[in-house]
Order: sequence, then C-alpha cells, then structure tokens
Amino acid sequence: MTTNTTLDTVKEEAWKGFKGRLWKEEINTRDFIQANYTPYHGGTEFLAGPTKATDELWDQLQKLQKQERANGGVLDMEADVVSSANAYGPGYIDEKEKNLEKIVGLQTDKPLKRAFMPYGGIRMAEEALTSYGYTPNPEFHEIFTKYHKTHNQGVFDVYTPEIRAARRNKIITGLPDTYGRGRIVGDYRRVALYGIDYLMEQKFKDHDEVGKGGQMTDEQIQLREEISDQYKALKRIKEMAEAYGFDISRPALNAQEAVQWTYFGYLAAIKEQNGAAMSIGRVSAFLDVYIQRDLENEVITEEQAQELIDHLVMKLRMVKFARIPSYNELFSGDPVWATLSLAGMGQDGRTLVTKNDFRFLHTLENMGPAPEPNLTVLYSSRLPEPFKDYAAKISIDTSSIQYENDDVMRPVWLDDYAICCCVSATQTGKEMQFFGARANLAKCLLYAINGGVDEKSKAQVGPELAAITSDYLDYDELMEKFDHMMEWLAGMYVNTLNMIHFMHDKYYYEAAEMALMDTHLKRTFATGIAGFSHVVDSLSAVKYAKVKVVRDEDGIAEDYEIEGDFPRYGNDDDRADDIAVWLLKAFLEKLEHYHTYRDSEPTTSILTITSNVVYGKATGSLPDGRKAGEPLSPGANPSYGAEQHGLLASLNSLTKLPYEDALDGISNTQSINPDALGHDEDERIDNLCSVLDGYFDRGAHHINVNIFGREKLIDAMEHPEKEEYANFTIRVSGYAVKFIDMTREQQLDVIHRTFHSKM
Amino acid sequence: MTTNTTLDTVKEEAWKGFKGRLWKEEINTRDFIQANYTPYHGGTEFLAGPTKATDELWDQLQKLQKQERANGGVLDMEADVVSSANAYGPGYIDEKEKNLEKIVGLQTDKPLKRAFMPYGGIRMAEEALTSYGYTPNPEFHEIFTKYHKTHNQGVFDVYTPEIRAARRNKIITGLPDTYGRGRIVGDYRRVALYGIDYLMEQKFKDHDEVGKGGQMTDEQIQLREEISDQYKALKRIKEMAEAYGFDISRPALNAQEAVQWTYFGYLAAIKEQNGAAMSIGRVSAFLDVYIQRDLENEVITEEQAQELIDHLVMKLRMVKFARIPSYNELFSGDPVWATLSLAGMGQDGRTLVTKNDFRFLHTLENMGPAPEPNLTVLYSSRLPEPFKDYAAKISIDTSSIQYENDDVMRPVWLDDYAICCCVSATQTGKEMQFFGARANLAKCLLYAINGGVDEKSKAQVGPELAAITSDYLDYDELMEKFDHMMEWLAGMYVNTLNMIHFMHDKYYYEAAEMALMDTHLKRTFATGIAGFSHVVDSLSAVKYAKVKVVRDEDGIAEDYEIEGDFPRYGNDDDRADDIAVWLLKAFLEKLEHYHTYRDSEPTTSILTITSNVVYGKATGSLPDGRKAGEPLSPGANPSYGAEQHGLLASLNSLTKLPYEDALDGISNTQSINPDALGHDEDERIDNLCSVLDGYFDRGAHHINVNIFGREKLIDAMEHPEKEEYANFTIRVSGYAVKFIDMTREQQLDVIHRTFHSKM
Repeated sequence: MTTNTTLDTVKEEAWKGFKGRLWKEEINTRDFIQANYTPYHGGTEFLAGPTKATDELWDQLQKLQKQERANGGVLDMEADVVSSANAYGPGYIDEKEKNLEKIVGLQTDKPLKRAFMPYGGIRMAEEALTSYGYTPNPEFHEIFTKYHKTHNQGVFDVYTPEIRAARRNKIITGLPDTYGRGRIVGDYRRVALYGIDYLMEQKFKDHDEVGKGGQMTDEQIQLREEISDQYKALKRIKEMAEAYGFDISRPALNAQEAVQWTYFGYLAAIKEQNGAAMSIGRVSAFLDVYIQRDLENEVITEEQAQELIDHLVMKLRMVKFARIPSYNELFSGDPVWATLSLAGMGQDGRTLVTKNDFRFLHTLENMGPAPEPNLTVLYSSRLPEPFKDYAAKISIDTSSIQYENDDVMRPVWLDDYAICCCVSATQTGKEMQFFGARANLAKCLLYAINGGVDEKSKAQVGPELAAITSDYLDYDELMEKFDHMMEWLAGMYVNTLNMIHFMHDKYYYEAAEMALMDTHLKRTFATGIAGFSHVVDSLSAVKYAKVKVVRDEDGIAEDYEIEGDFPRYGNDDDRADDIAVWLLKAFLEKLEHYHTYRDSEPTTSILTITSNVVYGKATGSLPDGRKAGEPLSPGANPSYGAEQHGLLASLNSLTKLPYEDALDGISNTQSINPDALGHDEDERIDNLCSVLDGYFDRGAHHINVNIFGREKLIDAMEHPEKEEYANFTIRVSGYAVKFIDMTREQQLDVIHRTFHSKM
Repeated sequence: MTTNTTLDTVKEEAWKGFKGRLWKEEINTRDFIQANYTPYHGGTEFLAGPTKATDELWDQLQKLQKQERANGGVLDMEADVVSSANAYGPGYIDEKEKNLEKIVGLQTDKPLKRAFMPYGGIRMAEEALTSYGYTPNPEFHEIFTKYHKTHNQGVFDVYTPEIRAARRNKIITGLPDTYGRGRIVGDYRRVALYGIDYLMEQKFKDHDEVGKGGQMTDEQIQLREEISDQYKALKRIKEMAEAYGFDISRPALNAQEAVQWTYFGYLAAIKEQNGAAMSIGRVSAFLDVYIQRDLENEVITEEQAQELIDHLVMKLRMVKFARIPSYNELFSGDPVWATLSLAGMGQDGRTLVTKNDFRFLHTLENMGPAPEPNLTVLYSSRLPEPFKDYAAKISIDTSSIQYENDDVMRPVWLDDYAICCCVSATQTGKEMQFFGARANLAKCLLYAINGGVDEKSKAQVGPELAAITSDYLDYDELMEKFDHMMEWLAGMYVNTLNMIHFMHDKYYYEAAEMALMDTHLKRTFATGIAGFSHVVDSLSAVKYAKVKVVRDEDGIAEDYEIEGDFPRYGNDDDRADDIAVWLLKAFLEKLEHYHTYRDSEPTTSILTITSNVVYGKATGSLPDGRKAGEPLSPGANPSYGAEQHGLLASLNSLTKLPYEDALDGISNTQSINPDALGHDEDERIDNLCSVLDGYFDRGAHHINVNIFGREKLIDAMEHPEKEEYANFTIRVSGYAVKFIDMTREQQLDVIHRTFHSKM
C-alpha cells in the first residue's frame, strides 16, 4: 500500500502531460480518453512489422497450439488448485526466455493450461477434467459438495418441475446454469490510470455510503457485501501483479506499464471467472494515449509500440477455459469471446479511431488470422476512410473481424461502451448484464399448434391450451394461440433467469470484475430469441399460402405441407419483414410484463452463436418447410435458401428490425464469394465499404463478414491437415472460429448456409 | 424410503386408537394433541422413582460433569469433524452398557464432547478450541476462510462504521453476530407422529407450490432454496437415526419410539446449530398421548414411562456447545436454553396438564435439580390445583423452574406455542424468530444528554445533536432529546439486525430445524431493551426531584447529583410505573418505523439474561443514582434497592407493563426468603400459589422464582466444593444456572439483588 504522499508524487509523474480535470477528481476513464486521445485520419503507412521477440513467441505459441489440437483440444489441465487471481505464482510462455514477453501473465502456471474453477458447478469442473483424462481432486469434491454450494447446485435446488421440463425439451436453452454467465466487462483501464490503491480507496468510500442514513434493505445489504468482496478482490489483483514483479498499487507510468496494468486487470477476471464471454472491452484509444505520449517523448519506437499490442493480443489468443462436451456442442471451436472493441465515433463528432486501432487490426497480419480476441469494429460511415479501407482489407484477407453499428449504439450507450460478448453492448465500467441465452420461439409456435405438447418428446411442457385441430392452419387462430404461448414462455423464461442470476450472485459473484466497475451499476436482463426467421416464414406461409397439418397417431402435428408460394424474410419484402418486426416487438413486450432480478432492464437479442445447430436438432418440422432436426438459421439470419434476391435485399430485411427493441443485439452473418465483391482487392475493398456504409446508415446493428466460397470450406473440412488451414478463421454467429476446430456437424451447417454470389 | 403401501400399513399400526381427522390429512400436531390427550387433575400419587438404569446413568453423567468442571468447564472438544446431523456414528454415555440408555443419541461421538461448528464464524470456532487448549485443524481454517464465507464474516463485511462504533461502545450489544441466533424451535414431535418420509413428501409438495404460476421474486427463490435445503436435512436426520439402528422414515409405534423420534428431531437441531437458545419446545402432552396408550394397553408401566422421561431429560441436561470466553461473560454458566414448556390451558378450556407434566417436574426429584432443560410452566390460575401445588413445591425445593402467563400468551400464540429461549413464545412449527439481543436504553439516555458522545469512550457514536448544557436537567428538554436519540437508535439497531439475519440465512441457515416447521412461517423480529428500570427511575428523578449534572473537563456529563426524593419503579407507584409503560410503548413504536428483514413483525422484550453485568460495566453513571460500571438491573426487574414496599408491590409494578407491547417477553426474577413465604412447606406452597395467581391474573408475563436467602449464596460462593452446592441451581434472568458455574462477578451481582423478606 503506497502512502498518500507517495501516491500523489507518483500520480504527478504518471499523469504528466495528461490534460483534463474531471477524471482526476473521480474515476472517469472516458473523460480521460476524451481529454487526451489523438484521433488518427491517416493510413497504414506508419505500421511496423513483428519484432524478433514477437516472431519467436508466436512460433512457440503455435507449436503449443498444435500440441493442444493433437492432444484432443486440451494441452494441460489443473486439478489441484482452485483458480483465483492470486492462486499461482508467475507463469511464462517460455520459462527460459521470460524477457521475450513484453506483456506477461498467464491464467495458470503454464501456457494453455486450463484452470480449475469449481464455483460455477463442481460436477462440471470435474467432468471437464475427466473428459480429457484428468483426475479430479477428491478434497475439492468434498469441499464443494459438503461445505460450499455451487452456482449450479443452487439453481437446480430452486428450479420448478415446469422449468426443468422446459429446459429438458429445449424450449429454453443454452442457459448459463451450467457455466458462468460472463458478459461482465470490468473497466480494466482503471488499473493503469489510477492504480489499485486508489480504486480500493474509492470502494472503501462507496461501502461507507451505501445505505447511510437510510434503511438497510436486502438490496443495500447485498450491495454492501459485494463491495466488501470487490475490495478483497482488488487486494488479490495486487498480489497477483506482485508475483510478476509489478507494483500496481500505483498508476502506470508509461505505455508498457499501461498495457501491462490493463492486462493484469483482465487477467484477474479470467483467473476468477469462466463466464461464457470474457471480453476485454474498449482499450484501444485509452492505450494509444500512453503510447502516443511515449512516442512523442521518444521513449519508445513504433516497433516497440506494435510489439506491446502484439504481445497483449498474443495473451488474449491464449485465454482458455476447461469446458465440458455439451458446452462445446453449443459453442463450437472453444471460443471465449475475448471481445475487443475498436474505432467508433465520439459524442463530440471526432472519431475515436487512433493509430492503436490500426495496430490491433495489424496483429492479424503480424501474427496471422486468429479467432481471438474477437475484434469488433464499431462502425460508422463517418469513420476515417483509410481506417474503413484497412478494416475492409483485413476482412477480405482474414474473415476475422465483425462490424457493429456505432451510430445506433452510441445514442443508447454513449461513446465509451464496449461489446461484452458476441455483439451485445454495455457501457464500460458502468453496466453489467444478466445474460439469459435464449427462448426457442420456433418451438413455441409448435407448442401453440399442439396445445403445449412438445413435438419431439410428446410431453406436456407448456400450458395445456386447446390444440389446433383443423387440417389447414388458420392465421388468426394460430396468432391468438401463439400469443398465449409466448406469454407463458416469457414468464417462465424470466422466472428461470431470475433464479439463475440470484444464484450466480450468491455463489459465484464476479468480485474481480465488479471491483473495476462503478458500485452503482446499470443492470440489463438480456434475453434472446432463437428460431427467429423460421417463425417469421412460418407465419408468412400460413398467411400467404396454405399450410396443411400432418399429424401423428397421437394427433400431434409432426409435419406441414405447404400449398402455394409465400414471401420469406431476407428478400426486402415488407409482407414477411413486417411479421419479423411484429415478432420482435411482441416478445419484448411480453418480457416486460414480468419482474426481473434486481430490477434490471429487460432487453432481447436475435443471436444464437453456433447453438442454432443444437437448437435445430431439438425442434420439430416447421410450417415454413424446415424439416425436424435441421439447424435453425443462426441469429437474425434469413433461413437457408430463403434469400433469393442477393446480398443487398437480404441486408435490407435486416435493417428493418428496430435496434431499440433488441438492445442486446441482432446478429447477422454473411458469406460472400470474393468474386461477387469485385475483381481485385481495391474494388473489393470499395464495394465492402459501400455495403457496410449503406447497411449501417439504414440502421442495421451487426454483420459478420466472411469472404470466401463454399469450395474452400469443403476442402478445409476434408483436409484439415493442410498448412493453409491451420489458422483459417471464419466468422460464425457473433464470433470467429478456426474452421478446423469446429465439429463436423457445425462445419456442415456453415457449408449449407447461403453464400452470396451476387450483390 | 418406505414405499407408500408399506407406509400406509405402518401408519395404521402407529396411529391405532388415535382419534381425530384433520391431523391425519395434513401436518397438524396440535390437532393430534387436542383430539387425543388426557387432561390430568390428580396429584403426585402415581409418580415413580428412578429406575436402576436411571440412577446408574445419572451417576456416570455426574462424574463426567465433575470431570468437566475440574477440566475448566470443558470435558472434550472436536477439532476434526464439522458437525452435522449425520457427521458421527452412534455415541453413548457408556459405550460398554449401551442398553442402559432407553433414549439414545449424543451430539458427537462421546458424552459432553463439544462439536466443531464453523459456519457461524471460523474464528470463534477456533478460539473456542484454543481457549481450552485444543488445536484447530488448518484444513478447516482454509475451507472456511478461502472457499466458504461464514455468517460472522458476512456480517462484518456489511456493517457500517456507525454500527461498528455503536457495537464497540455497547449501545447495541449481545448481538447474534458472533454466535448463532437460535430461538428457532422445530416441531420435533412431527418426527414421531408422521415419520421422516411423510415430512419429506410434504416438503417436496411445498417446493412444487412456491411461486407456481406466479413471478419468481427474490423472496420466492430464497424460500425455494430453503425448502430444498430442508429436504436434504431431513435425509440427514434419517441417516443419523439409522446409525443408532432406528428407522425413523416411518411414524413411531409406541411411547419409547415417540420419545426417541422426538429427541432425534431435536438432536439433529443441536448437531447442526449452536444458537444461543436451542429449545425443545412443548412435547409433554404430545408424548403423554403415546405413554397413556401404552399404559392403557399395559405395554409399559409407570416406572418405564418415568424412565423414558428421565432419560430424555438426562439427554437435555447434556447439551453443550463450544463457546468463547466473551460469550460466557454474556451468558454465564454455560446455558443452552433447552427450554421445555409445560402445562398451559387449551383454547377449549380444558387444561393441557397431563401426567407427563408431573413426570417432567419429577425429574428434578429423581435426578436432583439442574439448570437444563429450562423447565417452564405455562401458568394460569385455572391450572389444576394439584399441579400448581406440585410446581410450587418443586420451585421451593429446587429454584429450578420459571412461570409464564399462559392467559396472556394464549390469545396471541394460541394453545400450541412454546418458549423458544428464556421467556419468548413462538407458535410451535409455525413461527420463527429473528433474535436481536438488545439496545441499551440507559446509554441512549446518556447520549441524549451528551449529544451522541459516548460517556465512556468520549467518541461521537450517536448523531451529533446539541448536548444539554444546563446545570440541572430539565424534564421536557431531556424527553425531547431522548426521543430523538431513541429514534436514531431504533433505526440503527433495526439496520444492524437486518444485516445479521440476512447473513444468518445466507451462511448458516437452520435447515434441520426449519425442516420440522411449516414452509410458510410467521417471522418475528425480536428486539430487546436493556437498562429499562434505570431509564424509568432516571426520568422520574428528573421529573420529581432535581438532578444536577457533573461534567468532566471535556464537558461530558459523567455523574449526577440528585436533590430530593422521587418515586421509583417497583413500588406500585403510578408516577414511576407510568413512565415505564411510556418507555416501552415509545421504543416499540420507533422500531415500527423501519423496514424489518423478510417483512418480519417487530416485537420487543425487557430481558437481559445475565448480560446485565456486562452491559452495566459499559454504561456510565445514570441520573437515577446508579454509578458507572455497576450492573444494570436484569430484565424488567426494578433497580437494586429500589423496591421498598415488598414483593407484592414490586410485582404490581410489573403487571402494569402491557404484554402486547413486549411480545418477546418481560422477564422478572425474584428471590424470596423461605421464611417470608411461610413457616412450613404447606404454607409456603399455598402462599407461592396465591402470589402466582394474583400476579398472573393481573396480566404480568413472567417470573423466575428463587426461594433461598442471601446467606446461602454467599456460602456457596465461598465454598463451591461443598457437596450440597454441586447441583445448587438458581434462576437468573430467563434461565436456570448452577450457581457455582457462574463467574464471581455474576455471583456477586446475584448476591446484591433484592431478596424479599416480606410479602
């Protein structure tokens, strides 16, 4: 603990040359950035290639990754240490050549070794070990069954039979009750800007204030305990850095320290939590301020600056968690969503693009493509043209980045938000999300037809409403029943999430992440929709064509025969697209009828990650012609084969979905044949930028851009051993993944999706 | 788990001859008792002496108790097993002569060996061990500091600086934040009447119902988890009984099983919790039904019946917890409040006195006096005369029992309530208490005078209101400031208790006790008042005499000079007694201004146990003439020396305090010289009964009756080695205690109290 006088002296040195006032008087990273960052309108000419150290380290890491793959996906696992920020001493990629690493810090004591994290659920933690041939430590089994309940146990202790049935029948699915909820992004930059001691001091003050002079309700008491736990977590983070020889009680003095301190904040998070999404947030412009100062003072060179970013990114490429097989089925390819948000515009009209945004994209060239960190460009047509061109070029070359519409997000989240998962935005350090996976609305439609009976298990899962008995589906009757069933689903779904988050807070609270956020947080309640396009197309089929029901011996509708044609979502046809807008609004409205945990704000999303395959397996045939067991289309994507009018028509359908009704995100993944985009690189860059400008100016939220043809995927699936496919990265719903790391089922799904060969 | 058909057959056998319907269709022990018990209006002629087994066991136990005392108060302690219902195999008083024990079951594996209970607080559990020379197990230290938080840690994580200061300065004191809250009485009879399987079935149904069709709020989720934990606790209780060779999945078949099953229920409670008060409740009439059936069927003799009760009581005399020295200062003599409630009247006008109530009192003759179980007679002048006479005789002979007014409690708690601690009533199986220890109103009065500055530490503890600066205290000014200060105290006190009970539920929930209670409970929030008589007398002094303030160099009032005489509480003088009534009402009203945890009903009490000595030590001189550091008078007792008009006048003052304003109890402890009560036993019995009839008919709540002179106490203090004092038991505020087990300080306090030598 530095004394106050020393701290003041250190602060003076650390903040030398930095402008602004507010951020010095309170924790306010955004104000610091705004007062000090240097927007960059130039091109790539300043960028530096990899240093020798970068090349060497990356080589070593690639060898380790190869071993990992050869080992069945896991290089090493811990069974004898419960992970926490200070559970390990220092660890390095190369124990013998520690000085190669400009940015240090591993999750465990060895690179790619996966930590043991039992608080979410001891059975899962143990299953993860045994799945890869490791032996769980019986002492921990005793501790986490006999003395300490886990999040998973807590949730299953309170689930109702109705919820268990709904979960088993997968009408609600992918719930964070067997894994950490994630989607909580600490403002890791605070560690660099203020040092831990000041942050502890502020938490101490907050603790003092909560409930002062008022009544101690459960809410106040819960918050007070959380602050106390955050305070203790800050101590652990300090100890963790000490083990690496760094005193992070004080602010960072230079660029290297700023990157290192920020990473330490993030490292603590991934040592203490294994949430599905562990995003690092929006660090680019912030770190650029430090780099710029050091460059101007000629303390470092551009090569060194790039090296810092390369090494930080290398660390983010190494983040790994121990997972169980069923988790990998949902989220194929071992993603961690170390999402890193780039670019964007400021509220004052200046772009937030700095040289550092180029440097981050440049890592995909210096070290080749990679799925992590999940690089996300916060897009606006007003971004500097050279940056847009560079991003487009990287997309075309690597298919590793995604784009989200800064112009629709900024009004909601202001200009220091970050993507906390695949596509969902949260205000950095001021907001957390109660992640809620998704409800399968396609199945809900079938429940409406079958009176709450599940079409696969034949069990009465939903309420026993009267089933539809007519031979042909009547639009009005179906809509009325669907409305009832959605009302039930929304209520049961919200109840389930209330339970999950109550227990997550109780048994697996994210103290290390929350410690780097404001005490008084905004909380959103992030629900999600699966099967979106299929419901839209099914309703359209019933409305505009004739749909005959095929029933099994029990009278359960098991298939549908469509007579005539009907408009489909994804063709810029308002008849279908209006149904899409209605569906989104109707579901959100129903969610809002219910009490949400900690009075959080209910939001929804249309994104499914890769879980569309698993969801589809569990869903019967639909009135839109999709057959039982086939994958659902991912996210807000139109159904496979539905898009008949080219890329732009498809994108136009997406732009009609109002972002304010799906604040948790609307994910769209598109694959474009390089030839469709243009004849040479320049033309392709130009065209991609035009597509993005038009798409986002019309209010769409998100796009994953893949630039390759189906043939390449088929070849990669058949010949994964080819060197060229080792790092072949593609964008799937909301994240990037090494294609060869996906299950064959998932690979086939991707191959069957629409590849646009015309604009 | 017995199957349903077997269970039905067993039920038929178990319930053979029992009348009634409702209790067979739902859990309703009260209805079973009412339908089946046999009121007894006769005398003691049927009672049987101790059996050989009883004598032998009691001899052995007394030897162990001697060893325990010789050992410094603890015979043996566990350091390597965390206590729980099924943590141990069977244990017996005499391993070699197991068959002597008609009722079996120890808290640990050996008699009087104290269990290790870390959930309340690992530091306390460890301090208890080290205080008596035992070594804590470092593994448990790690588990309960690193992996599992304890109740104590949770509370201190959320306390405010204000609360910590108030606690340190002892204006709120004795709080259950370093020990279990206790005061939760499972309906242990349910185990005998229904068997565990049926109880599990019912909890399973309750789990199903909570929140069904509604919204899952925090309250619903918390309750659902609690039911789930209760269900698991029931399993553990079954396993515990299995270890002793009993299948308690089914109902008890006879008297022996009924006593044994009921005790198993209680045993689970004291294996899983170390609450300050661990009462067994109201089991007398219930068990009498089984005994009566067996007697009528000539399955057992009266000797055997008495033996069952003697052996049950012997077990209750053995209940022990590992405590720390500061706890023993508060609660002198190692009490556990294994309170057992006797007698009372039914709502239908029949007395609830059965032969069993005689048997329980008779244990004090068969095995001599003892402080535990804390035998409590629920008194009404309408109780059968022979029973009243017998109770009076036992009081006179042993000073081991207390009396509480059934006629004031029954209208509030109906006729199946039990005393859950020293004097507080709760409905059996339908109500739990959030125990809150007490606020020191005497100190609060001093804070009013000194503007919130503590008179001992000189710290600003209360709000910085303007201090009184005049030489003489003005009644109106003092009352206004006292009112403000009480308002602050009440709010801060309620906040503190909210925190304590939030954390107790979170980290040390009483699943085994709650499992034997209704799922939907009434919850009371039991606050308490310390220093009651001193505030009353101080205000009276200011009002009716002149009180001059003596201030120290800092201007803090440190003493008071009283000029003239004034009426004192305890003399049947309305001038003082009206202030007493006002004080009680005023404090309760202030408590009601605040939010109480789980919307519990705030109540208050005037009882201090033996903590009046510790509280007094921390309290400065008072305007009533009591000097700094002197003990406060206990409970609702008049101040030492105040009572100038004999026993009846003192009792009359007490009868004016309205029970409805102090539903948690009004404790009164009186010592009467045998000679004052009468010249021979018959006269003494008659007189004591008249005193009790009159006292309770006028609406008083409670009395501890001690029949001995000061000389005996002085002799016992000086010569504890004398055989006659080995089991010499006295009643202190709310419980009985072996006089020689008290600290010298406490002994002196008792000696200095008023001994009535005239009526």
